[in-house]
Amino acid sequence: MFYYRYMAVIAYDGANYYGFEKQNDLPTIELSLNSAFFNWLGEEVKVVGSGRTDRFVHAVGQTIHFDLTKKLKTEVIQKALNSFLPIDIRIIEVKLVDSDFHARFKAIKKEYHYLINKKDNDVFKERYTAYYYNLDLEAMRQGIAYLIGKHNFRSFSSIHTNQLKSFERTIYNIEIKEDQDLIIFKFIGDGFLKYQVRRMMGLLIEIGKGKFKADYIKYILNLEDPKVCQYIAPGKGLYLYKVYYE
Amino acid sequence: MFYYRYMAVIAYDGANYYGFEKQNDLPTIELSLNSAFFNWLGEEVKVVGSGRTDRFVHAVGQTIHFDLTKKLKTEVIQKALNSFLPIDIRIIEVKLVDSDFHARFKAIKKEYHYLINKKDNDVFKERYTAYYYNLDLEAMRQGIAYLIGKHNFRSFSSIHTNQLKSFERTIYNIEIKEDQDLIIFKFIGDGFLKYQVRRMMGLLIEIGKGKFKADYIKYILNLEDPKVCQYIAPGKGLYLYKVYYE
Repeated sequence: MFYYRYMAVIAYDGANYYGFEKQNDLPTIELSLNSAFFNWLGEEVKVVGSGRTDRFVHAVGQTIHFDLTKKLKTEVIQKALNSFLPIDIRIIEVKLVDSDFHARFKAIKKEYHYLINKKDNDVFKERYTAYYYNLDLEAMRQGIAYLIGKHNFRSFSSIHTNQLKSFERTIYNIEIKEDQDLIIFKFIGDGFLKYQVRRMMGLLIEIGKGKFKADYIKYILNLEDPKVCQYIAPGKGLYLYKVYYE
Repeated sequence: MFYYRYMAVIAYDGANYYGFEKQNDLPTIELSLNSAFFNWLGEEVKVVGSGRTDRFVHAVGQTIHFDLTKKLKTEVIQKALNSFLPIDIRIIEVKLVDSDFHARFKAIKKEYHYLINKKDNDVFKERYTAYYYNLDLEAMRQGIAYLIGKHNFRSFSSIHTNQLKSFERTIYNIEIKEDQDLIIFKFIGDGFLKYQVRRMMGLLIEIGKGKFKADYIKYILNLEDPKVCQYIAPGKGLYLYKVYYE
């Protein structure tokens, strides 16, 4: 059957969700999107995301694609979905794309941000940042240098991920920016393994606390073993910021 | 019985609460404070706030006072309460004060902030700002000029508030600040009537939209009648920012 393929950029506050991917009836982003389509069109529409995000993880620019049998104006699709979606999930943009576009397989780069709040008892950032103080950013910068480039990141992936063809990924850049009480870590790479950003951040935070020297990152990286080091930064500080396509 | 009086500065994310004041078993800030004291000390401790805040309204610096029969270190009180309070209510500071201190009656000035977000579909600010676009800030600034000073603010109070001795209040200053997508309105006065800030903001927003000229504020103010104009800005944009004492 002929269909029209659309891609959408979506943002969500992950605080109330068990991640992107559907897990039966648990509140997830995918389930909310499915319900919105069903309530709007009266039929099921399959949604394909650029990848999963974990529980509590946010998105500024997650991407999805889906197929509709009718050609609708992109603004109509955006408005309709937003009216059926909960307020903490928003469709930012909808585009008609080629029928071979794929939110996951056509992605060439992904950008994640990780937000650390230096201020304690900050009720308004509690859901949106991880709180750490007195981090040695210079040591963290040194640690970051070992992560940039093409590496086997198995040491920073999920222990349960074994069946992947390759654990090689390329990190193009990691940047640290300070903005008032916030420290923002920006990761850009060709793709990230499950838990990779949170586990890299987890170890970087330990380096920032002075628990390890910066070159401990290199040591862990070279072991290519997810069991040796399992610091994992809280999901609530992580944002899928942007997914890049050709 | 002899007691030690303490004052505390507290912050809260009002999104999950029916305001400050206890209303049976509804989730309120006061109820949460009462529960925290009871769970910590095994006894009831009466909490007196500087004033109520409405449903969804936030606080950066609400103040309370309470009496304890034992003299405890202020850091101990802060830590204990924070460990029993939900994460969206935080004790920022505790001070031992004179026994005649009173969070409400000794307050000499209050500062409220109102946050407007110019960006649509901003999931991370949805609970913390009101969304309006294309507001004419210059017209709003002109409207603000009519509010500053000593006035009878009955036109901007709750329709149900009749038994007050006086509706006269003094606004010392109202300031507009822009910060990226946010417009921040800062109100400082000797006190505010129920709904006053939200109703002043409500009318200012209508002026910003071009629905009324700025001097309509003066007209409404002079009527001294809460029934003639009932625009009320959403609670979620309002913050009790600071309570001042001698």
